[in-house]
Amino acid sequence: MNLASAAGITLEALRRRCAGVALLTAAEDTAPYLSDHRRLYHGRALAVALPQTVAQLAALMSCCHELGIGVVPQGGNTSYCGGATPDESGQQLVIGLGRMNRVRAIDAANFSMTVEAGCLLEQVQRAAAGAGCYFPLELGSAGSCQIGGNLATNAGGLNVLRFGMARDLTLGIEAVLPDGRVFQRLRSLRKDNTGYDLKSLLIGSEGTLGIITAATLKLWPQRHGSSTAFVAVADVGAAIALLALLRGAAGERLNSFELLPRAAIELACRYIPDTRAPLGTASAWYVLCELGSFVDEQLDELLQNTLAQATSAGLVQDAAIAASEAQRRAFWNLREAIPEAQRRAGPGVKHDISVPVSALPAFVAEASAWVAGHVSEGTLVAYGHAGDGNLHFNINWLGGAASAADVAAQEPVIRRAIHDLVAAHGGSISAEHGIGRLKVAELQRYTSAVELDMMREIKRALDPKGIMNPGKLLGS
Amino acid sequence: MNLASAAGITLEALRRRCAGVALLTAAEDTAPYLSDHRRLYHGRALAVALPQTVAQLAALMSCCHELGIGVVPQGGNTSYCGGATPDESGQQLVIGLGRMNRVRAIDAANFSMTVEAGCLLEQVQRAAAGAGCYFPLELGSAGSCQIGGNLATNAGGLNVLRFGMARDLTLGIEAVLPDGRVFQRLRSLRKDNTGYDLKSLLIGSEGTLGIITAATLKLWPQRHGSSTAFVAVADVGAAIALLALLRGAAGERLNSFELLPRAAIELACRYIPDTRAPLGTASAWYVLCELGSFVDEQLDELLQNTLAQATSAGLVQDAAIAASEAQRRAFWNLREAIPEAQRRAGPGVKHDISVPVSALPAFVAEASAWVAGHVSEGTLVAYGHAGDGNLHFNINWLGGAASAADVAAQEPVIRRAIHDLVAAHGGSISAEHGIGRLKVAELQRYTSAVELDMMREIKRALDPKGIMNPGKLLGS
Repeated sequence: MNLASAAGITLEALRRRCAGVALLTAAEDTAPYLSDHRRLYHGRALAVALPQTVAQLAALMSCCHELGIGVVPQGGNTSYCGGATPDESGQQLVIGLGRMNRVRAIDAANFSMTVEAGCLLEQVQRAAAGAGCYFPLELGSAGSCQIGGNLATNAGGLNVLRFGMARDLTLGIEAVLPDGRVFQRLRSLRKDNTGYDLKSLLIGSEGTLGIITAATLKLWPQRHGSSTAFVAVADVGAAIALLALLRGAAGERLNSFELLPRAAIELACRYIPDTRAPLGTASAWYVLCELGSFVDEQLDELLQNTLAQATSAGLVQDAAIAASEAQRRAFWNLREAIPEAQRRAGPGVKHDISVPVSALPAFVAEASAWVAGHVSEGTLVAYGHAGDGNLHFNINWLGGAASAADVAAQEPVIRRAIHDLVAAHGGSISAEHGIGRLKVAELQRYTSAVELDMMREIKRALDPKGIMNPGKLLGS
Repeated sequence: MNLASAAGITLEALRRRCAGVALLTAAEDTAPYLSDHRRLYHGRALAVALPQTVAQLAALMSCCHELGIGVVPQGGNTSYCGGATPDESGQQLVIGLGRMNRVRAIDAANFSMTVEAGCLLEQVQRAAAGAGCYFPLELGSAGSCQIGGNLATNAGGLNVLRFGMARDLTLGIEAVLPDGRVFQRLRSLRKDNTGYDLKSLLIGSEGTLGIITAATLKLWPQRHGSSTAFVAVADVGAAIALLALLRGAAGERLNSFELLPRAAIELACRYIPDTRAPLGTASAWYVLCELGSFVDEQLDELLQNTLAQATSAGLVQDAAIAASEAQRRAFWNLREAIPEAQRRAGPGVKHDISVPVSALPAFVAEASAWVAGHVSEGTLVAYGHAGDGNLHFNINWLGGAASAADVAAQEPVIRRAIHDLVAAHGGSISAEHGIGRLKVAELQRYTSAVELDMMREIKRALDPKGIMNPGKLLGS
C-alpha cells in the first residue's frame, strides 16, 4: 500500500470517528496552514482540522493517538521558528485553533478573564478593556496571533520589563493531552500550591506536550496615561546606565525600554511609508522608553527630570518626549516597522538572544566586532527589548549586497559565532521566539545533557507515542 | 537480617562512599530534624546528612539511588504540613541543607543574586540590602526558614499581591536529581524560551523530584518609604471593595492587604506581650494594608485620601495610618503575633485556603455559617492575605473548651466541610503551605484524575525508584 492510499484510509477513519470536525483537504484551503510566516518551511499535511469545541478536539486527539497520527497545533501561524508548520511527509494532521475563539468569562473584581485559545490577542486586549481592565501582553502581531499560540510559545513582547512573559500573565489553563484526556485547571487564583506546576510546564512547550485550549489570564486596572521618550545615547553602556536611572526614578512605572541602532531607524525610514527619525541628532544608538501608570500622576515631568539628570551625567545626547498620542504612536510605529523594513531590505540572518542586562554592553561590543570582522557586506541591525537583556541581533544584506542563497550559506557560521558569544555571557539563544523547528540543533548544542535528558523524560512520560508536534523543540 | 542491622549496613555504605559528608546518628543530634514545626509528626531516620557542597550532595544522592534509600530534604524545618519530616520506619535519610549557605554572587546592575539553598531567608534579604537592592519575599519565619525550603514549597507571604510567590521571584535554579545528576541552570535572564520550564516544575515540588541547591533570584531597587494603615471595616465585602479602590488609586504601590477578624486581634492582645489593638472602634473585621514605593513620593497622603474616599463610600468605619516606623512595626507585630497566639490559646484546626478575590465575601459567609452551626464551642479566627484571596481559615477552642484529642476527632469533618466549600468556589485547599504529608488525601480528593495522573507520570519519569521525599505530596 503506498503512502497516499494509507493517508486516505487514515483520513477516512478520522472523518468517521470525528464527525462534526471540519477537515480541510483541498489545496486552496490548506495552503495558508502549510507555510510559516517567514516562508522558511513549506510542509504538506494529511488534512487541516478545525475543531470548534474542547470535546471535538479531545475526540480528534484520542483518534490520532490510537492511529499514531502526528499532530501539529497551529494558532495564528506567526511563529518565527517554524513551530506550527507540518513536515514534508503529508502524514501529519494540522489542527487550527481559530474556531475556538470565545471569551468565556471576565471577572473584573478578581482581575481575571478566561479566553479560548483561538482568540486573537487583539480580541483579548479589547475584551479586557471593555470590562474596564488591561491585559498587558503587547506584540506587533496582536491582530493576527492567537492567545493559544502566545501561551504555547511563552510570548514576550514590549511590556515584559514590567509585567513578565505570557507565562507570568496566566493563572490557569485548559489543555487537551496527547491521548485526548482534558487537563482542566482554569482556576483564577493568585495562590495555589497543590502539586506540580503543570500549567508552567505546558506553557512554552510549543505544542509538544498537549494543546492549550483555554486560559485564565491576569488583568490589571485600566491604564491612566503614559509618557514616552525617544532618546539618543552614545553607546549601549550609556543605555544600560539610563535604564538603571529610570528604574530607580520611576520604579515599576517603566513599561518598556527598547534599544535601536541607527541602522534600524534608517532602514525603517527608507522602506516603510510614513516613518521618520524623531531626533535631528545622529547617534549610533537610540532608546525608546515608556512610563505608564494606573493612577493619575505627572509622568511627563518625572520622565523629563530623569532624562535631564541623565543628560547632566553624560548618558543622553538628545531626547524628545511625545507631546501627543499621535507622536507617541509615531515613535512606536517606527519601532514596530523594523521587522518589516528588514524583510523588504534584503536577505538577512536573525537571532533572538538574551544576556544578563549587565552583560549587554560587553556582548554587543564583542558580537559587533565579530560581525565587522567576518561579515563585511552585512549591516548589523541589533535592536530590541534591552530592558530585559533581549536583542534581536540581526544582520541584513542591503541593496543586493548578497543573494538569499549566499546569505543562507553563511548563516551557520554566523549563528555559531553569535550564539557562542551569547553562551559565554550566560545568555539564551532563544529569548522569546522559542525553538520550533529552526533551533532544534541549537538547543541541543547549548543545553546541558542533564537538562535535555529531563526534557526527554518528561516528553516520553506525557506523550509516549511522540505524536505531539513531532520534530519540534526536542527534535525527533 | 533484622531492620536495625540492615540499617547499619546501609549506613556503613554511605559512610564509606560519601566520606566527608557529616552523618549524624546520635539521638541528641538528630532529634531536631525528626519532628516538624507544628509537632504533628515524629519520625525516625537512618541518619541526618549535612552536605557542604553540591558535589557532596550529588555523591550522596547517587549512593541513595543505587541503594534505594528514601531521602527527606530539610531546610529550616518550618513546614506547616510535615513536608520535611521522615516517616517512622527509621530507614529514610534526612538531608539538611543548612551547611550549604553561601551567597554566591550579587549582580546589582542586573537586579539578581545567586544564593545557596541553606541561606536563611533573612540572610538573603540582608545580602540584597547590602548591595543596595531589595528581595521581596517576606515571611514571619524569615529568621529560621531557608531559601531552599521557600522554593521547594513555593512560599507566599506578605508581599505576594505585588511581587508574586517564590516561584515568580526566581530566575534560575540548581538542583541535584534523584540519581545524583546535577541540573544547573542558574541563568540570570529575564527571558529564556529554550525548552520546558524545568525550573517552575522543581519549584513547589516539595523535594519529591530533586533537591534545590541554589537559586538565582530577582531583585528590586531599594525601597523608599511606605505607608501603613490599620482599618476597621464592617464586613468582608467592604474589605474587598476597599481593595479594589486601593488597586485603582495606588496601582502597584499596594504591597500588602491583610484581613483580620476581631477574634484574631483579641487573641494576639491576650496571649502575646506588647501587642494592643490599634483602633478604639470595635469592628468585626480589620484590614492591615501597606503601600510602598521605590521612589520618593507622598504615600501617606495617597493612602489618607483613598481611605477618606472609602469612608465616604461607607466602606471604612475607622482607620489609623502609622505615624512612625515604631507604629508601623506595632501594626505588623500584631499581625505576625496571630499564629503564636493561636498556638498558646488552645487546640485548633487550620486551613490554608484561597478563592478568587471576588468570591471571598460569599465564601467567608458560607463557611462561617457552617462553623457557627456545627462547631459551637469553636472560635473562628479566619485571617490572612485577602488581597490574594488567601485566608488561614482557622478555628480555635479557647480556654479549655475542648481537649486536643476532642479537636483532633472533629478535624476530619470540619476539614471536609470547609474544603468542600472552597472547591465549590473554585478555590484551592493549599494556597501557600503546600501538601507535605498533612494534605496528601486532600490533594487526591480535590484534584482531577487527569492532573494526578500527569503528576504521577512526571514523578515516575524523574524519580523512577521513588526515593525522593517518599509519602509526601502524591503519597506513596
